[in-house]
Amino acid sequence: MSKGILDYSVGEQVEKFLLIKSSTKGIASNGKPFLTLIFQDQSGDIEAKLWDVSDTDESTYAPESIVKVLGDIQNYRGRLQLKLRQIRPATFADSVQVSDFLETAPIGKDLMSSKITQYIFEMSNPNIQRITRHLVKKHQDAFYEYPAATKNHHEFVSGLAYHVVSMLDLAKNISELYPSLDKDLLYAGVILHDLGKVHELSGAVAASYTVEGNLLGHISIMVNEIGKAAEELRISGEEVIVLQHMVLSHHGKAEWGSPKPPLIKEAEILHYIDNLDAKMNMLDRALERVKPGEYTERVFALDNRSFYKPSFHK
Amino acid sequence: MSKGILDYSVGEQVEKFLLIKSSTKGIASNGKPFLTLIFQDQSGDIEAKLWDVSDTDESTYAPESIVKVLGDIQNYRGRLQLKLRQIRPATFADSVQVSDFLETAPIGKDLMSSKITQYIFEMSNPNIQRITRHLVKKHQDAFYEYPAATKNHHEFVSGLAYHVVSMLDLAKNISELYPSLDKDLLYAGVILHDLGKVHELSGAVAASYTVEGNLLGHISIMVNEIGKAAEELRISGEEVIVLQHMVLSHHGKAEWGSPKPPLIKEAEILHYIDNLDAKMNMLDRALERVKPGEYTERVFALDNRSFYKPSFHK
Amino acid sequence: MSKGILDYSVGEQVEKFLLIKSSTKGIASNGKPFLTLIFQDQSGDIEAKLWDVSDTDESTYAPESIVKVLGDIQNYRGRLQLKLRQIRPATFADSVQVSDFLETAPIGKDLMSSKITQYIFEMSNPNIQRITRHLVKKHQDAFYEYPAATKNHHEFVSGLAYHVVSMLDLAKNISELYPSLDKDLLYAGVILHDLGKVHELSGAVAASYTVEGNLLGHISIMVNEIGKAAEELRISGEEVIVLQHMVLSHHGKAEWGSPKPPLIKEAEILHYIDNLDAKMNMLDRALERVKPGEYTERVFALDNRSFYKPSFHK
Amino acid sequence: MSKGILDYSVGEQVEKFLLIKSSTKGIASNGKPFLTLIFQDQSGDIEAKLWDVSDTDESTYAPESIVKVLGDIQNYRGRLQLKLRQIRPATFADSVQVSDFLETAPIGKDLMSSKITQYIFEMSNPNIQRITRHLVKKHQDAFYEYPAATKNHHEFVSGLAYHVVSMLDLAKNISELYPSLDKDLLYAGVILHDLGKVHELSGAVAASYTVEGNLLGHISIMVNEIGKAAEELRISGEEVIVLQHMVLSHHGKAEWGSPKPPLIKEAEILHYIDNLDAKMNMLDRALERVKPGEYTERVFALDNRSFYKPSFHK
Amino acid sequence: MSKGILDYSVGEQVEKFLLIKSSTKGIASNGKPFLTLIFQDQSGDIEAKLWDVSDTDESTYAPESIVKVLGDIQNYRGRLQLKLRQIRPATFADSVQVSDFLETAPIGKDLMSSKITQYIFEMSNPNIQRITRHLVKKHQDAFYEYPAATKNHHEFVSGLAYHVVSMLDLAKNISELYPSLDKDLLYAGVILHDLGKVHELSGAVAASYTVEGNLLGHISIMVNEIGKAAEELRISGEEVIVLQHMVLSHHGKAEWGSPKPPLIKEAEILHYIDNLDAKMNMLDRALERVKPGEYTERVFALDNRSFYKPSFHK
Amino acid sequence: MSKGILDYSVGEQVEKFLLIKSSTKGIASNGKPFLTLIFQDQSGDIEAKLWDVSDTDESTYAPESIVKVLGDIQNYRGRLQLKLRQIRPATFADSVQVSDFLETAPIGKDLMSSKITQYIFEMSNPNIQRITRHLVKKHQDAFYEYPAATKNHHEFVSGLAYHVVSMLDLAKNISELYPSLDKDLLYAGVILHDLGKVHELSGAVAASYTVEGNLLGHISIMVNEIGKAAEELRISGEEVIVLQHMVLSHHGKAEWGSPKPPLIKEAEILHYIDNLDAKMNMLDRALERVKPGEYTERVFALDNRSFYKPSFHK
Repeated sequence: MSKGILDYSVGEQVEKFLLIKSSTKGIASNGKPFLTLIFQDQSGDIEAKLWDVSDTDESTYAPESIVKVLGDIQNYRGRLQLKLRQIRPATFADSVQVSDFLETAPIGKDLMSSKITQYIFEMSNPNIQRITRHLVKKHQDAFYEYPAATKNHHEFVSGLAYHVVSMLDLAKNISELYPSLDKDLLYAGVILHDLGKVHELSGAVAASYTVEGNLLGHISIMVNEIGKAAEELRISGEEVIVLQHMVLSHHGKAEWGSPKPPLIKEAEILHYIDNLDAKMNMLDRALERVKPGEYTERVFALDNRSFYKPSFHK
Repeated sequence: MSKGILDYSVGEQVEKFLLIKSSTKGIASNGKPFLTLIFQDQSGDIEAKLWDVSDTDESTYAPESIVKVLGDIQNYRGRLQLKLRQIRPATFADSVQVSDFLETAPIGKDLMSSKITQYIFEMSNPNIQRITRHLVKKHQDAFYEYPAATKNHHEFVSGLAYHVVSMLDLAKNISELYPSLDKDLLYAGVILHDLGKVHELSGAVAASYTVEGNLLGHISIMVNEIGKAAEELRISGEEVIVLQHMVLSHHGKAEWGSPKPPLIKEAEILHYIDNLDAKMNMLDRALERVKPGEYTERVFALDNRSFYKPSFHK
Repeated sequence: MSKGILDYSVGEQVEKFLLIKSSTKGIASNGKPFLTLIFQDQSGDIEAKLWDVSDTDESTYAPESIVKVLGDIQNYRGRLQLKLRQIRPATFADSVQVSDFLETAPIGKDLMSSKITQYIFEMSNPNIQRITRHLVKKHQDAFYEYPAATKNHHEFVSGLAYHVVSMLDLAKNISELYPSLDKDLLYAGVILHDLGKVHELSGAVAASYTVEGNLLGHISIMVNEIGKAAEELRISGEEVIVLQHMVLSHHGKAEWGSPKPPLIKEAEILHYIDNLDAKMNMLDRALERVKPGEYTERVFALDNRSFYKPSFHK
Repeated sequence: MSKGILDYSVGEQVEKFLLIKSSTKGIASNGKPFLTLIFQDQSGDIEAKLWDVSDTDESTYAPESIVKVLGDIQNYRGRLQLKLRQIRPATFADSVQVSDFLETAPIGKDLMSSKITQYIFEMSNPNIQRITRHLVKKHQDAFYEYPAATKNHHEFVSGLAYHVVSMLDLAKNISELYPSLDKDLLYAGVILHDLGKVHELSGAVAASYTVEGNLLGHISIMVNEIGKAAEELRISGEEVIVLQHMVLSHHGKAEWGSPKPPLIKEAEILHYIDNLDAKMNMLDRALERVKPGEYTERVFALDNRSFYKPSFHK
Repeated sequence: MSKGILDYSVGEQVEKFLLIKSSTKGIASNGKPFLTLIFQDQSGDIEAKLWDVSDTDESTYAPESIVKVLGDIQNYRGRLQLKLRQIRPATFADSVQVSDFLETAPIGKDLMSSKITQYIFEMSNPNIQRITRHLVKKHQDAFYEYPAATKNHHEFVSGLAYHVVSMLDLAKNISELYPSLDKDLLYAGVILHDLGKVHELSGAVAASYTVEGNLLGHISIMVNEIGKAAEELRISGEEVIVLQHMVLSHHGKAEWGSPKPPLIKEAEILHYIDNLDAKMNMLDRALERVKPGEYTERVFALDNRSFYKPSFHK
Repeated sequence: MSKGILDYSVGEQVEKFLLIKSSTKGIASNGKPFLTLIFQDQSGDIEAKLWDVSDTDESTYAPESIVKVLGDIQNYRGRLQLKLRQIRPATFADSVQVSDFLETAPIGKDLMSSKITQYIFEMSNPNIQRITRHLVKKHQDAFYEYPAATKNHHEFVSGLAYHVVSMLDLAKNISELYPSLDKDLLYAGVILHDLGKVHELSGAVAASYTVEGNLLGHISIMVNEIGKAAEELRISGEEVIVLQHMVLSHHGKAEWGSPKPPLIKEAEILHYIDNLDAKMNMLDRALERVKPGEYTERVFALDNRSFYKPSFHK
């Protein structure tokens, strides 16, 4: 997609397809209902008001529908707003799809898939290798589509796989610096640690929690899946328990959702790698939006801190 | 077994079989090694010293071996001690067995088994009933033998099943007072909640934690087992997830080992029932050992409190 | 009262008396003041707007006044609203009273009173029995009128006594399962544990905290009352201190308001029973409002959890 | 008492009366029992061994008995020890008494009593003044004898009254700097805050906790006493509740034993004054025992810190 | 300044200069922008609306500008409001300055300065005296201008110096009651403890945090300054480290911002004195605004408590 | 040094120099004093008893002295012991030195120094580069000698520099994976973060805390040093504050000793790198001592966990 909605300047006219991210009804001071719409494309999101709406409008302009808009970019109290002149729902003939408007991982699925395949290929313990390969294969469609979380970090299409690929690269570098680490375990732990999210979350877009996700959580779901995989593959060594433990303990502490803390060296290191990659992602996204000499917005998952971008940074 | 070791008075002579609970080597002031032995039978335990021991003695009088002793009950600094005159290992011909010396649940396995069978029979939801029955059957030998824990509460032979039976009776009473409760769920939760201990612990006697127990814990183990049972029985309704959740959440909070807190009413109530029965067991055991007007020893699992037995209690 | 305000369907016309639960002034977009009224009867509450109000209206339609309304039930953004056509304050001639519109305990005062009398009658320790009877008698009017709390649980007329009766039934059942419990102590603890609320709260309706309630709290108030009762009855045994301790410790932990944790077995059990009955009440009320397959609103006093109603529940 | 036991140097011979603070039986390497005795006088305490003791010796040389000893001061592994040559129990004829050997407040009871009387005299609110005077009078014997605590601070004879007098002087100074403070309330709070210790502790010497102290605590005890005093004096103003609140809240937080935090300005300040005087006492005692440039032992009640005495302090 | 804005009654007409404390833009129901202005003078602040504003108005009536207003005091929903008739920015000719409208310490800079000079003069340790005098002199302009904090306590012009002076008086009184205290250390600690705020905060009025303040904090800044002062004055004794420690530890605990807890007696006492003076200031300000028998607003820095003003207080 | 003391088998005779790590006096059952000595060389440590010692022996065989021993390796209750036949202090003529017996970093000082020099050389920000180079140079002797801590991790000669070199390699790898990181800041942060330990600790061997270390801590010490360095080098850009912040915040949280949490991205990452390298060192040392299928001893600084070495690890 060429020019994103956030690439327009104040005063410019916009005519393009956009995805409705959220739609909230309000009552105007004249007593008539209106909609506050948040439009989204890959460049980000922008607010607009649709006045004097009917009940039909309310259902037409619902979240996750695509619309064609004509309007002007305005500055309203320091934030950009889109003043609508025309709006209509997209039709089949427009041949646009939701994924055109979603932020997605910076590298493609094919590359991610071939990197992960390569990492699995490098494993030398056959039990670990077979279980990992089996589970990646079983869930491959969702695995390469889902976000890593509903918010906080890697909350974009293919975010889950992208998070895994970044962590694998980190794991490889760290294993080389600390050769006592069992690379097979570490790679397998990285690949499987969040794979349960394909059951925990409802889908790749606008993900919410499933009942299974709420009642069991992605950690317990994946521990079960590893057990099942081992049975199907007739694998019974201690590797099965150790892999389950890697997943079970990767949140690091009971109060963070791991019923057992890491009790294996590689499990402890997996927790650090996960943390480092997730926090780096959050920090980059928050700092991108500010200029040198400014502070970011508070980042909830980083203890609500507001980070400073040094003025000597370009 | 007739007269227990704790039933003898100071000055009385003892001649009986006893189980060695622990054996610790020391060096006497004359430079010679000796053993501090703790003997046990169903009435409790008592200390004794075995002087001038050889290396053979050390291995003969190891924990979990049975011995025949002759000696006298003494008072040493306020505590009973057994002054040994003679000691020998029990032989096959003596036809004594470890279980003769162990504390065990106050009601027999048959009675416990028939009560549990009855509770399962009363369930009306077939999915819940079949999974519960399947898992009890699968693990029935260990289930009726194992303790409920290695210490703190119900740490005796058949303690696990006894804890379950007490909780079922409580669950039944509470369900009658609060009819909105789903009895099937509550009974199934009670029966399955600690069943994973048959994998977590090493056995019915002198139980320690298995590697699986340490790395996964009885909660995750049983969540997996429920999943497996449902697959084998081809059951796929929401009952499976809900039962897994009952077990997963029964410790009540993440920091107490439940990765998800109770999110179902019956799961919340299961947590209370478990707590109430376990604490009642600890309190009864601690208070039995003191007289009215005295304080118990500190009870670690009750926040290290020391409880008072009112002087108007008989 | 026949048909409650929540029993009407959208589109139906309503003509009935209602209690004003709250009244908040706003300024409409035409610059004129209006009132947002919450009406209440025993079936629940509903919102309405009263436009173009005068200063007199504001004082006439104040909280806790009763009005006669004529209007229509509407659906506004997913919630029921009452569109007012006519409203007038109730007069003496209407012979309606506040209590007609309040939620109240599901069983009557007489039944509650006779149950509590029976439980006191069953006590065998005369010191415990006399103190308990004395205090119930002294505060009987308020005791059978007050709510158990201003929010969270049993926050309705006679909620305090109803909470006590439910707990007594629980206590009886538990005492039968665990015969080592001192029933007298447990019953007395249940009956007295929250009785201080008759001083802590300002009244049976729209209760707020008194100065004494804020500065001392119902626990300290009742500990004092027990001491006073014992003096008046010339009772001096250890029962007095133990009863005071039962009340003092019933919140379980210092940080929950008990300066001493339970140090008597029955005090520990009282804490569990109180907890169980209060939480059951909250859960039932939250779950009543949702359908199978849905989540409740977050329940503040249950760690802000949102509970799931299994889809296999009717 | 002239020369204290800690005033002797290594090598000097000692012949004097001493109080036995503790006595512990051991078994020597020759198999014979011996006693480890800690002797005490107002200068401090010293250890000694009594070899080859009989059962009679054990009961004769029990804690809190006074003995006449003859022995030599020795250095044993860096600490002083008394090598006994002779020992005998004191007799009536020796006319020595336990109080001769106890540490006591640095100012006498008469002075403390007249200071407290003066502070009460200065109060202008008659309700506060009468309740305070009544309670001090009621408990005056114990009040001027008891320690302020069993350990940590002011753990000496008359420690309670001495702590109160120091706090009153502080309160007076602070009230002069911050004239918005209600001096009557502050003085009364200081005088009454720990008075419940006369019931909580067993006595002035070797104090332990009474059952009432364990089950209710000095705070609740004194809150009751204030209520009782008000009734006896027929005082009913808000002063009664406020005084009860001062005592109730003086530990500052629920987790420190105050079921209500301070909600009155003077209650907040009382908490600070209590803290300041108690900590100053602990710090002085710990620092007295070390030289400039050294660290004190860890002080448990000060978060287990070890304090440094600057080398430029004399 | 004669009559403050809060000294007018409802219905009175006001014509006076005021400082704009904050200005927030809104959109009225007629679609036109308006400003919500908070005006301030030394008596407090009041809200007003300025309707139909232009872009110029928005920048003219910005925070920290002074205006001349004509208007009427109204009661709007229980709070005072100023209904504007005329408003204009102040000009040079009006000869008014920001400081005329700011709350300031109750005693003048000269008096504060002479008191602090006197306290420094009383020190007998020359190293402590010289460092303290040097740093006060270096920062004297800001020291006597800055507030002690941006909110919570002493948040007014000269608040920092006023807080120090009050603490010095407290320190003097306490040192006299506890003569073991090193007065020099205590006075120096009081004078220097918050002096780093002259770098941490942006200025005396409407203070915000500087980058240095955010990244290092006033504690670390002042520890550095003490080190630098010692170098410049060629002082090298242990006093330097001890003074740095006094400042470093004055927040009392790591979680409150002190990387080392107090490990010197005077450092511990400094923490109490700081706390006592700050809290007294907050309490006085909160209680001034309510009448006897009422509760204050919640005070955030006092654990969000709401304090009660006894009804027997005048 | 050829064969280490832990390389001998039971029964072998030993004749070699050893360092005394600790020496504790005891009294044998014959009433005569003896010493329990812990000998150390680079392979580890072993216990021995020296019987019937004189006062001279006690001072001769003090910690940190070197001795020549002749003796036999024995097994005593499962642990190796050295049974002494002869012992004498080393003399000048023996030409042995303490460092011969100490564990030291696995790579030499020269290599570490050249790596660090290279990393500094790679920096492109001259302010950061000059401050870092200046401080490394200023403290170079201690920097390459000191341990990184007195216990927990890198507690060996040159441990500080070795920890820094490992972290630099990690930092380099991570910077390459996340190119948004400012390498200069990260490298400088790594090099300076613990450099204050050269003042905090007393020396390279048997390090204890200095008074400055106890009262200020290595973090505050180094923040001051950076300030001083900047002054001496006449550098005044924001880099100075940012570098100080990197050091100040590297413990991550106030309760872990950082008065400010990381507020710069590189500071956050520095905290992770420090953690990862320290924990890896602890884990490796703990796991080296156990065999596959075993658990390590509890590791205090890893939340007292005991780690499992999988049985499929070689």
